[in-house]
Amino acid sequence: MPPALHELSLSGSRFTVLYHLHGGRDTARAMAEDICFEQTVEFPPDLVPAGGVRDHVVGRVERFDEIGPKTFAAHISFAEETVGSELTQLLNVLFGNISLKPGIRLVDFTLTEDLMARFHGPRFGVRGLRERLGVGERPLLCTALKPMGLSPERLASLARDFALGGIDVIKDDHGLADQGFCPFDGRVARCAEAVARANDETGLRSIYVPNVTAPGEVLFQRIARAQHAGAGGLLMAPGLLGLDTMRRNADDNRLDLPILSHPALLGGFVTSARSGMSHAVLFGKLQRLAGADATIFPHSGGRFSFTPEVCRSLARACHSPLGELRPIFPVPAGGMTLERVPEILDFYGRDVMLLIGGDLHRHGDLVRTCERFRKLVD
Amino acid sequence: MPPALHELSLSGSRFTVLYHLHGGRDTARAMAEDICFEQTVEFPPDLVPAGGVRDHVVGRVERFDEIGPKTFAAHISFAEETVGSELTQLLNVLFGNISLKPGIRLVDFTLTEDLMARFHGPRFGVRGLRERLGVGERPLLCTALKPMGLSPERLASLARDFALGGIDVIKDDHGLADQGFCPFDGRVARCAEAVARANDETGLRSIYVPNVTAPGEVLFQRIARAQHAGAGGLLMAPGLLGLDTMRRNADDNRLDLPILSHPALLGGFVTSARSGMSHAVLFGKLQRLAGADATIFPHSGGRFSFTPEVCRSLARACHSPLGELRPIFPVPAGGMTLERVPEILDFYGRDVMLLIGGDLHRHGDLVRTCERFRKLVD
Repeated sequence: MPPALHELSLSGSRFTVLYHLHGGRDTARAMAEDICFEQTVEFPPDLVPAGGVRDHVVGRVERFDEIGPKTFAAHISFAEETVGSELTQLLNVLFGNISLKPGIRLVDFTLTEDLMARFHGPRFGVRGLRERLGVGERPLLCTALKPMGLSPERLASLARDFALGGIDVIKDDHGLADQGFCPFDGRVARCAEAVARANDETGLRSIYVPNVTAPGEVLFQRIARAQHAGAGGLLMAPGLLGLDTMRRNADDNRLDLPILSHPALLGGFVTSARSGMSHAVLFGKLQRLAGADATIFPHSGGRFSFTPEVCRSLARACHSPLGELRPIFPVPAGGMTLERVPEILDFYGRDVMLLIGGDLHRHGDLVRTCERFRKLVD
Repeated sequence: MPPALHELSLSGSRFTVLYHLHGGRDTARAMAEDICFEQTVEFPPDLVPAGGVRDHVVGRVERFDEIGPKTFAAHISFAEETVGSELTQLLNVLFGNISLKPGIRLVDFTLTEDLMARFHGPRFGVRGLRERLGVGERPLLCTALKPMGLSPERLASLARDFALGGIDVIKDDHGLADQGFCPFDGRVARCAEAVARANDETGLRSIYVPNVTAPGEVLFQRIARAQHAGAGGLLMAPGLLGLDTMRRNADDNRLDLPILSHPALLGGFVTSARSGMSHAVLFGKLQRLAGADATIFPHSGGRFSFTPEVCRSLARACHSPLGELRPIFPVPAGGMTLERVPEILDFYGRDVMLLIGGDLHRHGDLVRTCERFRKLVD
């Protein structure tokens, strides 16, 4: 007894998702058809009621092309109504159940105008962040307060040196949460003050960006305290918080701080080339849709394994037109060194935020080292 | 100028994480050492200050064994203070940055007593859910309201039939959010009422479990409305919401409803055997730590690709001792059929919740089919 169809009225507007499918032609074609059902009705194809559900709610293979040995590109469209207006449900339609099926990779997606209008994206973006920092066209400089285990006082002292040396964005290491040896409130108050005082001396507008990644009960409280203490931005790890949680805070009009997104725990989606998501979607498009003003990721040749090609696609996703959403800063990181700055600039151009952590501690006087870093981008 | 060490006082209590590392012996050994730094200080080893940070904050390789061709098991311990008391930071220490490094798989972890005491886990668990449903020792029956595209009225009519047929847990399909063709409020009110009326007729205690996976601004409101409307449980997809968001609601004393966890978007972590997390950690231990009372996953032989071995480890993680946390129900799903029920029962034993969706619609009268399903487990 397949239930009868009620009056289902849909706009006919559909958005399109590009998947790469790995397998022989017949297998890949079957995977494409399967995605159409799995991501919508999740019902045996022969039992889906005829009419609107079958004709419009079920996904539709719009194109299917061989693009390499046992690799196919499937463009699949979905009715925009399957998403409603929610990021959680968008993620679900894009890749919910099929994340569990090997051989399917989410490579790109293009939303309808109506869907795009439901996402506000970054509050600041490239231009807004530049204005806030008072930095015209040069690349931005970023570093992290670490190592974990230092007291708030020691971290504040580092923050002061970084600010005196002209680092624009001084962020918590993402492992600093609210540990007993470095409680959130004490750390944030001291580091924000240290940076403010250094700014008084230098005349610059460096910002301190605390890590507010935290359990739901205290997340907003930490954000509010950070803002109150004079933080100039917020570090969030959407892999730990949920992507929508970052978006919610980006959309919160009580807040007026740029967001740096950290990639912790997101790696699961990109370690296999045949499954998961493309780097451009995960670290670019989705971050932008979810309100990040800058997205941290491991640049090739550091401690991680991203290829130059992948980094280039990711940077493109940060800058390319995406509805009305602002472009954002790619933040290549993960073991970068002063030595590599010219090469990295060559790679990303000027709209980039360079994040160097440990290496700044390797060259003697910290303030001088930061000044050297600064000269490399001026 | 590596910053000097402040007085760092740690308890000495450490928790242990098991990683499988893929590569030659020297490579794998180097990966193990790298994890110790990457997951804590994230600082070049030669620059980490001597004393407490180096001796206690940095992870420690406790065991390192070859377990197969180019496969090594590394037991690495971390000071419990690196986590503080937060699930977000626990996830970060377990697998934050290294999720981005191929060849590392998080296989298991054992927390200290103190850390375990910070997690309340499932509010109901196996026993609590059985009590609520009035079901002694038999396996529980579950189905999903679908396909997407049906109106609230049609779904309520299905819910009624399922309840009349004796299905214990009648959940929304996880693709039902708040779409225009099936708004949350209308659906939940109608389906909850339909199940309540059917219960009046049957004398059973079937529950309706709406999908409350939603953006942060409306999540709690939906949960509260579901509870008010008479829902008997909540369906949440922690992959879409964030694992901590599920935990937060499980810990919320204003709520008194069991939680079914749905695996949407979590697949990224398990599609590669050499990276990501073990199924037992992702769908078992972490779900339990985050308060799920039942965890849905694709059983082997259905539409997905989990092996029997993987399903067995996952079920074990649901039932095995884990501090004081209650055992929870494994919910094998993903294309299960009535035909397979005896075999699935044989596999999981009695403390299982059987989820059959589409196949229930394949055998004529829906109420009769549910009664058949019921007889298979009585």
